[in-house]
Amino acid sequence: MPKGVPESVPDDGLTTRQRRTQPITAVHTGPGKGKSTAAFGMALRAWNQGWSVGVFQFVKSAKWKVGEENALRVLGASGEGGTVDWHKMGSGWSWIQRSAEQEMTSEEAAKEGWEQVKRDLAAETYRFYVLDEFTYPMHWGWIDPDEVVAVLKDRPGSQHVVITGRYAPEALTEVADLVTEMTKVKHPMDAGRKGQRGIEW
Amino acid sequence: MPKGVPESVPDDGLTTRQRRTQPITAVHTGPGKGKSTAAFGMALRAWNQGWSVGVFQFVKSAKWKVGEENALRVLGASGEGGTVDWHKMGSGWSWIQRSAEQEMTSEEAAKEGWEQVKRDLAAETYRFYVLDEFTYPMHWGWIDPDEVVAVLKDRPGSQHVVITGRYAPEALTEVADLVTEMTKVKHPMDAGRKGQRGIEW
Repeated sequence: MPKGVPESVPDDGLTTRQRRTQPITAVHTGPGKGKSTAAFGMALRAWNQGWSVGVFQFVKSAKWKVGEENALRVLGASGEGGTVDWHKMGSGWSWIQRSAEQEMTSEEAAKEGWEQVKRDLAAETYRFYVLDEFTYPMHWGWIDPDEVVAVLKDRPGSQHVVITGRYAPEALTEVADLVTEMTKVKHPMDAGRKGQRGIEW
Repeated sequence: MPKGVPESVPDDGLTTRQRRTQPITAVHTGPGKGKSTAAFGMALRAWNQGWSVGVFQFVKSAKWKVGEENALRVLGASGEGGTVDWHKMGSGWSWIQRSAEQEMTSEEAAKEGWEQVKRDLAAETYRFYVLDEFTYPMHWGWIDPDEVVAVLKDRPGSQHVVITGRYAPEALTEVADLVTEMTKVKHPMDAGRKGQRGIEW
């Protein structure tokens, strides 16, 4: 239970108010469950603040996130809280023609997603970003972690970014403000049980 | 990225369909962030399935969960998906008079919450339960983990239960189907930064 009491006060010349609006970079990594789920849970708070939320799903299969996607769409359209845009690879990034994306390799599609994230960060399109499974294109060498770090460091305004996925590159976790590792202690699939509707997606 | 492929097939005489509707007990524990947040993220999926969701918040201060609470209330009232009931200790369990709860100690209030969970499980009131921070009253010796385990084992129907909080008792993690430990790798409060609106609550 966080109590909101910092363990020390930094000598950074900032006021508490300035520190409270500093942009946060968060990384959810590790082999356990809950990396994306916790990111979407954070998006609920952002929505509740009236912030614009942009989700970029760097994963081909959308099946596993359909519950969160529907929920955030309903919230974004509710007239309360902030707006929600949900962009996903594989079923077609929203800003390019589906037919164009179908001719792309996964690597090209992932790079195209990152290009759009860069454009949105430069334009301050959203206040809160979920870059879901974004560690994988970095891990696979498709997107340079050093470039990601440089873009995040230079982003204007107070835009918060949460990145999820296993194998978070060290360059990224070094600059992140908040890094949580989810460890798998026990999982029903280990006991031969299959994924369940409502639980896994 | 879970692929839904079990590592082995159990010799339990159940069909895949039967296995898919087995009630899940999940525990999110450990010192890291995201235990509750991931549980509320799971609640989005449950809501999306049209399931009735019951949240029991075993914590006095409600500040930290207000974003999730508002979001789930809006979803529950949206006419899409399932219903959501959000019960919280401290600001008054919904089924007892606020004045009555104010005369209770924290221990009495936690026990009263658990009694209601038992009644709801027996009556199959909800399909999906979040028992948020419920490990603490067990850890503090207020509620017997063995009784919790016995009640969970005997619960009727297909009711899923997610329990969050540090110090999950071993009796509980032993019977849980899904246990995830959240490890704190890095947290902005360590660097003297205070909790931020939209990020922490």
